[in-house]
Amino acid sequence: KKRYNITLLPGDGIGPEVISIAKNVLQQAGSLEGLEFSFKEMAVGGAALDLVGVPLPEETLTAAKEADAVLLGAIGGYKWDKNEKHLKPETGLLQLRAGLKVFANLRPATVLPQLVDASTLKREVAEGVDLMVVRELTGGIYFGQPRGIKTNENGEEVGFNTEVYAAHEIDRIARVAFETARKRRGKLCSVDKANVLEASILWRKRVTALAAEYPDVELSHMYVDNAAMQLVRDPKQFDTIVTNNIFGDILSDEASMITGSIGMLPSASLSDSGPGVFEPIHGSAPDIAGQDKANPLATILSAAMLLKYGLGEEKAAKRIEDAVLAALNKGLRTGDIHSAGTKLVGCKEMGEEVLKSV
Amino acid sequence: KKRYNITLLPGDGIGPEVISIAKNVLQQAGSLEGLEFSFKEMAVGGAALDLVGVPLPEETLTAAKEADAVLLGAIGGYKWDKNEKHLKPETGLLQLRAGLKVFANLRPATVLPQLVDASTLKREVAEGVDLMVVRELTGGIYFGQPRGIKTNENGEEVGFNTEVYAAHEIDRIARVAFETARKRRGKLCSVDKANVLEASILWRKRVTALAAEYPDVELSHMYVDNAAMQLVRDPKQFDTIVTNNIFGDILSDEASMITGSIGMLPSASLSDSGPGVFEPIHGSAPDIAGQDKANPLATILSAAMLLKYGLGEEKAAKRIEDAVLAALNKGLRTGDIHSAGTKLVGCKEMGEEVLKSV
Ligand SMILES: CC(C)[C@H](C(=O)O)[C@@H](O)C(=O)O
Ligand SMILES: CC(C)[C@H](C(=O)O)[C@@H](O)C(=O)O
Repeated sequence: KKRYNITLLPGDGIGPEVISIAKNVLQQAGSLEGLEFSFKEMAVGGAALDLVGVPLPEETLTAAKEADAVLLGAIGGYKWDKNEKHLKPETGLLQLRAGLKVFANLRPATVLPQLVDASTLKREVAEGVDLMVVRELTGGIYFGQPRGIKTNENGEEVGFNTEVYAAHEIDRIARVAFETARKRRGKLCSVDKANVLEASILWRKRVTALAAEYPDVELSHMYVDNAAMQLVRDPKQFDTIVTNNIFGDILSDEASMITGSIGMLPSASLSDSGPGVFEPIHGSAPDIAGQDKANPLATILSAAMLLKYGLGEEKAAKRIEDAVLAALNKGLRTGDIHSAGTKLVGCKEMGEEVLKSV
Repeated sequence: KKRYNITLLPGDGIGPEVISIAKNVLQQAGSLEGLEFSFKEMAVGGAALDLVGVPLPEETLTAAKEADAVLLGAIGGYKWDKNEKHLKPETGLLQLRAGLKVFANLRPATVLPQLVDASTLKREVAEGVDLMVVRELTGGIYFGQPRGIKTNENGEEVGFNTEVYAAHEIDRIARVAFETARKRRGKLCSVDKANVLEASILWRKRVTALAAEYPDVELSHMYVDNAAMQLVRDPKQFDTIVTNNIFGDILSDEASMITGSIGMLPSASLSDSGPGVFEPIHGSAPDIAGQDKANPLATILSAAMLLKYGLGEEKAAKRIEDAVLAALNKGLRTGDIHSAGTKLVGCKEMGEEVLKSV
């Protein structure tokens, strides 16, 4: 029997509900494929702030580092919104990403045939969308120094951040993107703002240079403002998108909303060698927390990504993906994806249905 | 008779075609309201690069400064895409904005009843969208220092830019936004990334403080990634949006595409006292330049904004807006907004039709 250590980080809001379900599904899929998991649950985000006063306690980071993979729920909530920067739940997430060096964030946005109508886009525009945003996750303006709020010579406050990319940071995320595109439909679109920003000029130069090593991948470049438009105009034109941390934050959320089912979308954050972090792309949704209304499928599908990208256990991953489709095919829908003619269920019922079909 | 000096900057690609039409419309609307215009045409962008080797010749900036308002076509093209930063057409546009200190960029995104079906969004989502993005235009990462590409201690290239806002820069754009919201439906949404960036933390703090002076305006805050989603999910929730230079670039383009008619959308860039710059939000579209295919309405409507926001000539502005609606009501459509049952016309024919109805 293969054994894996999984660190669970339920976090805030609906995080605990969806993590407890995804954990069961992961365990079940694994055991059917001869895998044994041991789980360790640790605090992060607002939950950690309330418990020990910091958003990423040292024991949590240690447990994450020692794990084979990390499954995370969600982070943040109104309660901590006014906290100072270093005491924001989000800061814990950023510290986790930096601590684990998970520089490659994979965010698929897929429109399932069962859910085409959940999109606000016209059926013919949404149907068949299947793209992957590869977002750089440990660099750029999120982490760049210098940063802060200072008082200038006029006694006036000035807020500043630094967008910065070194060549090797661009190269390593670009390689992940080229490899990803190669396994998909062979098209890579690199998004930047090279008509204005020097950081983007270097980005474009490095990505272009690497293309020679991937002759089977068709590379194109797009300015970020145009990409934001093209995602609305014709999302099907995209296969794989690679971009920096902040543009990736914006465009991956836009892309996810285009699928109409942000409660459905998982993500994987990968490093060169250590454990990856797998989490739904949706937030902590404090307004529906604890009400059995959350859609657990994004976290369940994150568990599938954990198996596939984190542990290389493709068979167990496939079991989970198929079980999710089975539950949808039975017509079960949580509130966020509910439409006429389907059955409205809660978070738990959806989870149990998936568990049965694994 | 009131006299105004207008500097025309046709620029590149379809710029010259649409400017020559908008000029005629402007002249006609003005003369019917007792206004006399004298026009001065100057080179900018790629056109200026080809002519004199710089993207914003000094005479052009001088002519712009001396004018009562500037009407600009479009800038850029493949031909100059590989130019070094200081020789890019876009650099000329940025220099123009900085030179005229036009810090407030107003970008309306409206879905006209006549054009609802041009949107890729479902009819019920697109119908009635009427929002205004107020984008900061002369600060932030577009202009922040330090910036560049340097070699670090490992002999590796590093690209960097600085996102920076001083309190007074935030205050003055926020004031424009509050005033704008006040004249609209009284709702202002400030978009930032205050959960990660210090520049955004200061942004939110200043905007929040100013709200006390505008008790009639309802202020909300939204993270930029969420805003990118909400524009797709339910664009009608927005009235006025205020945000920084780069987020405004991305979100205003996304919003414009949501209307489905980016060939229809004008913009105004305003300073504290000097002349404003009025331009369509679409690009130079080199692929259709010179083929009489461009939609001149965005530039014509920019001329209307010039009259309204630049010169305070509301009546003449209204003439233009009404004439555009009249042409649409007759069923005339350029290729970008054409649909079954309407009449496909070229750039010139559309322009003549508007001119007739002014
Ligand atoms: C919570 C926040 C810090 C985070 C980010 O901006 O990266 C989130 O929006 C995400 O995309 O995972
Ligand atoms: C051409 C480019 C420099 C410009 C910008 O990014 O501001 C354009 O995209 C715009 O939005 O007016």
